[in-house]
Amino acid sequence: MSITLQDCQEKDRQDPLAAARDQFALPEGVIYLDGNSLGAQPKAALARASEVVSYEWGVGLIRSWNTASWFDLPQRLGNKLARLIGAGEDQVVVTDTTSINLYKVLAAALRQQAANAPTRRVIVSERRNFPTDLYIAQGLTEQLMAHGAPAFELRLIDSPEELPTALTDDVSVVMLTHVNYQTGYMYNMKETTALVHERGALTVWDLAHSAGAVPVDLVGANADYAVGCTYKYLNGGPGSPAFLWVNPVHQNQFWQPLSGWWGHARPFAMEPGYEPQKGISRYLCGTQPITSLSLVECGLNTFANTDMQAIRAKSLALTSLFIELVKQECADHPLTLITPTDANYRGSQVSYEHPEGFAVVQALIDQGVIPDYREPRNMRFGFTPLYTSFVDVWESVRILKDILDTRRWDQPQFHRRGAVT
Amino acid sequence: MSITLQDCQEKDRQDPLAAARDQFALPEGVIYLDGNSLGAQPKAALARASEVVSYEWGVGLIRSWNTASWFDLPQRLGNKLARLIGAGEDQVVVTDTTSINLYKVLAAALRQQAANAPTRRVIVSERRNFPTDLYIAQGLTEQLMAHGAPAFELRLIDSPEELPTALTDDVSVVMLTHVNYQTGYMYNMKETTALVHERGALTVWDLAHSAGAVPVDLVGANADYAVGCTYKYLNGGPGSPAFLWVNPVHQNQFWQPLSGWWGHARPFAMEPGYEPQKGISRYLCGTQPITSLSLVECGLNTFANTDMQAIRAKSLALTSLFIELVKQECADHPLTLITPTDANYRGSQVSYEHPEGFAVVQALIDQGVIPDYREPRNMRFGFTPLYTSFVDVWESVRILKDILDTRRWDQPQFHRRGAVT
Repeated sequence: MSITLQDCQEKDRQDPLAAARDQFALPEGVIYLDGNSLGAQPKAALARASEVVSYEWGVGLIRSWNTASWFDLPQRLGNKLARLIGAGEDQVVVTDTTSINLYKVLAAALRQQAANAPTRRVIVSERRNFPTDLYIAQGLTEQLMAHGAPAFELRLIDSPEELPTALTDDVSVVMLTHVNYQTGYMYNMKETTALVHERGALTVWDLAHSAGAVPVDLVGANADYAVGCTYKYLNGGPGSPAFLWVNPVHQNQFWQPLSGWWGHARPFAMEPGYEPQKGISRYLCGTQPITSLSLVECGLNTFANTDMQAIRAKSLALTSLFIELVKQECADHPLTLITPTDANYRGSQVSYEHPEGFAVVQALIDQGVIPDYREPRNMRFGFTPLYTSFVDVWESVRILKDILDTRRWDQPQFHRRGAVT
Repeated sequence: MSITLQDCQEKDRQDPLAAARDQFALPEGVIYLDGNSLGAQPKAALARASEVVSYEWGVGLIRSWNTASWFDLPQRLGNKLARLIGAGEDQVVVTDTTSINLYKVLAAALRQQAANAPTRRVIVSERRNFPTDLYIAQGLTEQLMAHGAPAFELRLIDSPEELPTALTDDVSVVMLTHVNYQTGYMYNMKETTALVHERGALTVWDLAHSAGAVPVDLVGANADYAVGCTYKYLNGGPGSPAFLWVNPVHQNQFWQPLSGWWGHARPFAMEPGYEPQKGISRYLCGTQPITSLSLVECGLNTFANTDMQAIRAKSLALTSLFIELVKQECADHPLTLITPTDANYRGSQVSYEHPEGFAVVQALIDQGVIPDYREPRNMRFGFTPLYTSFVDVWESVRILKDILDTRRWDQPQFHRRGAVT
């Protein structure tokens, strides 16, 4: 019994999140399946940007640090974000970039282990983790070793199943992305954290592809450190500042090394000696890009009338439908599903490898369907319950099928590689 | 022969930079003397913000990384900024925050010295340096020592005159702010760098209060590393991303430890191993806040029709006039000038200590004159040649005199301390 367009239309009629789409300014003629890379623009963002530029900056000038509460933004946005990731009050700040926040928490975790378990010298991660996470771990440990630290090892597993074996008694920190950017595989955060703790190590979770996409319960999982991104499923705007969470039991134990003025206990006393604030605010560093940071709030506000359970229900319905429709419509083509079919291990994206994945993605974009491509052969389709409809799924598979059936991708312009896709 | 309002009006008529003020949206009834903390809003910024939000984000979505050249912004803005600081082509990137960029270059400088001169363990700076610079040095060295590095020393001098004596043969890096945020004292960069090099150390210059305010010649001074701010005299917007310069002879020698994806030699190959780009781009780390970053260009564009020599000439005329007028009008009051009277050592601000400096500044703001206050007693008056007029100087001294003569500052509301002034 095949799935029809009418089935998809009916799903849209039944969708309790259907109205949420009105919050977004989506361009005409585009089906946007790349919210996992850059979330769509909330309509409210334009007015907010104008207010920040014209009024807060233009008229308020330096006074806006107080009068427009710029100084409280990292914590205020952190508290607004907290419920989406299962964090408590005053446990999250929005600041800097995911890479930089990862450096802060990884440095803090290594520092903690150096004090408590100095023979633990291994950082475990995945070879298919988002590369910047691995690069940051390399940059940090390379720096420490160059100045005399005993050797660290970055131990990369090839699949999540290898994790238990990798957790030998020299492991210091396990640094994982909760939902893998390539495959969409999602770890069970609670079970994984429990296993890591049982083996004496600490967890650093990257929530870049989780926050706003799947339910996360940092406190319930008793995680140690987490970072994540606001410009993907949280719709904060291009490159909007990232977030950072630290389990309160660890917060006050150590400095993080990016100890700038905003993390000081008395930032306006102008003291020459650093003393970190108590709590999560010690993870702040320098002055933040206020315009971009302010727009994060517009993204977070798009979640105001829903919760992560409702989003998860629709997300799984969308990704399942996409998988079923691709099976139904594109079975003759060399598409290899690399996303788990078991919903318990699936984030909010579906990825297929195709030998000509790059060109197929370019041909899709040319036809108004925007997924993205990641080397080596991966076509990623991201599903954003707040603005993706079931008919969008139908249409995108219909267009994919047409491109594959007609080999429309096999034109020179779809093979030219630019800097980013 | 006292200075009159008519003299100031005449100076405005003769001012070749007078027309530059039209580029800025300054609020009615305000004399803004805090461009050294947050530059005024270029009128072009509003339209640019709308374009980034509505069109580049809203319509272009992920495609704007290519089509709107987001990916080239750090280097493109760096090249636009270069002529204002005496840097060469492809030597500057605009990215992250001043604090974070300082961490990168200080880490690189220490790394370089650890390899070449491992017995040099001292970082020299000033006790009155901007505190975040000292905090970053503390955070970095504390981190290295906690992991086994031999001891570092942060040696703080109390005045620039102490520098030669402080440069013993164990000094690794001299980290100075070119123009001091409290006093406005300006180092002779060329002579100081030569002295530091003669003693076998490297220079790290913080240009936060220099870029766009005074002529800087990084290449001519043969400086080693520099960072600076775009939201002060460069008018880039609240908390806009900072800049970073590295002498080409050092660029490719070492990694900086914040080795995120954007600094990778092949950022889209998704390789698990980090390999830095050649050149200044290896100092990039994570994804940048595109809206805030884009607005930096509007600030830089306000310099399009002038050069730093013209700006310097007006800056010195403004600061000299202010000093003369305060002497003429406010001689009876306990104002202590802490800015050099010798123009060769003066930046673009004038600072006075006053026992009730905090309250006096609040009373000034209440009367529409906005300087700022820095603990313990420092009233800072910043002069921005692009939008400050000579009559502004006259008016601000007239109002200051009135506040002091009438003790208007001695009201309860002017003594209440908020988070930031």
